[in-house]
Amino acid sequence: MTSVITLLTDYGLEDGYVAACHGVIAGIAPDVRVIDVCHTIPSGDVRRGAAILAQTIPYLPKGVHIGAVDPGTGRARAVAIEAGGRVFVGPDNGLLSWAVHAAGGAEAAYVISNEDYFLRPVSPTFHGRDVYAPVAGQLCVGLAPAELGPERPPERLVSLPEPTSLIREGCVEGEVVSVDRYGNTQLSITASDLEALGVRVGDTLGVWLGRRQLSMPYRETYAAVPPGELVAFADSVGLVALAVNSGDASQRLGLPPGAHVRLSPSP
Amino acid sequence: MTSVITLLTDYGLEDGYVAACHGVIAGIAPDVRVIDVCHTIPSGDVRRGAAILAQTIPYLPKGVHIGAVDPGTGRARAVAIEAGGRVFVGPDNGLLSWAVHAAGGAEAAYVISNEDYFLRPVSPTFHGRDVYAPVAGQLCVGLAPAELGPERPPERLVSLPEPTSLIREGCVEGEVVSVDRYGNTQLSITASDLEALGVRVGDTLGVWLGRRQLSMPYRETYAAVPPGELVAFADSVGLVALAVNSGDASQRLGLPPGAHVRLSPSP
Amino acid sequence: MTSVITLLTDYGLEDGYVAACHGVIAGIAPDVRVIDVCHTIPSGDVRRGAAILAQTIPYLPKGVHIGAVDPGTGRARAVAIEAGGRVFVGPDNGLLSWAVHAAGGAEAAYVISNEDYFLRPVSPTFHGRDVYAPVAGQLCVGLAPAELGPERPPERLVSLPEPTSLIREGCVEGEVVSVDRYGNTQLSITASDLEALGVRVGDTLGVWLGRRQLSMPYRETYAAVPPGELVAFADSVGLVALAVNSGDASQRLGLPPGAHVRLSPSP
Repeated sequence: MTSVITLLTDYGLEDGYVAACHGVIAGIAPDVRVIDVCHTIPSGDVRRGAAILAQTIPYLPKGVHIGAVDPGTGRARAVAIEAGGRVFVGPDNGLLSWAVHAAGGAEAAYVISNEDYFLRPVSPTFHGRDVYAPVAGQLCVGLAPAELGPERPPERLVSLPEPTSLIREGCVEGEVVSVDRYGNTQLSITASDLEALGVRVGDTLGVWLGRRQLSMPYRETYAAVPPGELVAFADSVGLVALAVNSGDASQRLGLPPGAHVRLSPSP
Repeated sequence: MTSVITLLTDYGLEDGYVAACHGVIAGIAPDVRVIDVCHTIPSGDVRRGAAILAQTIPYLPKGVHIGAVDPGTGRARAVAIEAGGRVFVGPDNGLLSWAVHAAGGAEAAYVISNEDYFLRPVSPTFHGRDVYAPVAGQLCVGLAPAELGPERPPERLVSLPEPTSLIREGCVEGEVVSVDRYGNTQLSITASDLEALGVRVGDTLGVWLGRRQLSMPYRETYAAVPPGELVAFADSVGLVALAVNSGDASQRLGLPPGAHVRLSPSP
Repeated sequence: MTSVITLLTDYGLEDGYVAACHGVIAGIAPDVRVIDVCHTIPSGDVRRGAAILAQTIPYLPKGVHIGAVDPGTGRARAVAIEAGGRVFVGPDNGLLSWAVHAAGGAEAAYVISNEDYFLRPVSPTFHGRDVYAPVAGQLCVGLAPAELGPERPPERLVSLPEPTSLIREGCVEGEVVSVDRYGNTQLSITASDLEALGVRVGDTLGVWLGRRQLSMPYRETYAAVPPGELVAFADSVGLVALAVNSGDASQRLGLPPGAHVRLSPSP
């Protein structure tokens, strides 16, 4: 028996969509705790959903983890993926792929096709309510994932290309993974990448953004520089972030997700 | 014993108002699950609150359902309404009327006047915290609705006029009921209305908005048309919605809630 | 055993930060109810966080109350403060001080330094997840606050100056404490202050905002005046608020938190 369901969607907080999912779960598995991971993923932004789910999953108890961000609205096959003692439920469009990887990689996957566990009629535009929520509830009260439908070889699941970093010529290159509430701009470059280049906390970094070149202090936290100043630091999941203390680095630097960034040990 | 309370308000997420209601409930009924239906109803927008509550209620477990949207702030009589094994608690201003109807219609109603169950002193501007939340908590731990105050004949409860559709001269007329996060514009016209006119999924619809006339494909989901294109589809509660795939139809068409719309089988 | 944890942060709703805290708590104390007080405190706004926590605390069950608003990101010492049967957990930067006062004042306080109870490695920028959440969870399942670290004399805790009111020359002076979702502008002046000046509900107030002078009706609720009109009333925590019925008084009057306001019995 699993006692936790987590929920990440792009349903927003302005409507009753999230509540409908909670309601369906409560009707099937009344004792399960539901943790809302995030519901304000920009509509259809699979990459941002994937990033937030993957970065949060290490801190969530093992359970059933629903992701519902699907610009194709139901075109993607619904799947249940077992990984590291967790079950991920959602569209097979890459949304779950980084979190599955963070949980240790897919051990088995099943296409969710057995309509016995759906709410019917299934709305083509609301699989969260009619497919993912009832299936997750059933999984919590004892249903085996294999009952959901035919097995799908994990290697055939859709994967988003993982944001990566590349060390060459004494620099490390990567991209913007996500921008948080504060405008902190998280890169695909890890603190270990910088360490491998000999960079230590306290050093100054060279930062290339396209043709622009800047230099920034590399510190333990953004609070280590005066308000309004740029700084790089290793964020709470170990990725290098560019920030402005008490300000918005993404706006200041004009850096959206996906933008290319290169860092070097000294300016 | 009821084990679920649901909460719909216009209190927003910027203050501690919703938490105060949760806290009051937890103090009285610590084992009850509280489901937040929506707290971002525009301030005082009774119609939008009514629409969201009514469309979500079929997916919520039977319980005590609080609605707190009251532009008169406490001027409306507080009522408890029994319908379909549920109890609705809130102001008698029509907010609850569509949900009560969706639950099968009012079987009995009571004016909430017995101050023994209130938090005192009762703030004139915060009945959610001081009246609805403690009363809902008490109802969950065994209080009978009849203890709350004098019975009120259901036919004397305030009802909002239900958005309706009218089939005539080969067309169907209705209005915009609500606009969701995505800008999808939900009409009071049902999929069955279109069926009665002989419209099938795959057909093209004529759409009259005041003097403007458009034509739109009628499809199973908005994802059936290329991004940026207009489309009509039956939404997740069976109402016809006008949408733009990956766009905002309400903005594009200039259609606020209440706007009149007419649909016909062919342009 | 404590069965409630409450959570107030400036983490926002756009990321997975709040969920990570929920997850950590659920892993340690799976049966504890978590109540979200507010997560949309403007980034680093300690005063607003303090005001919302203090005004909500009387309505929350006794439990462990986390506050996480820390512009210094981890520079402030983490503390646990016992007050009125509650334990407050957060940075020693004044954020908790008004709530502690509202709960009856600090009886004992401890610096949180025993890393046995932290998630490790501790991120310098995410004490909510790595320090406050696991410590709160442990406190709920039996840990004594004294185990967290050395005792700290309550009088040495950082306190924000409490917003106060001053009666003189037949007037009462105060400041804007907070502005809520509706634009209602809450003052540090109490309903009792006005009573002491002989003002009764139904009277007219003189209102000085810097050099501007206005007069406003003093009523039981903002709904007592026609839509669009200014009004003063005692709000749901007993403080005088300036409001516009169905409008935004803060915007209309140009009154941000901290602005000075003087009220008198008659214009």
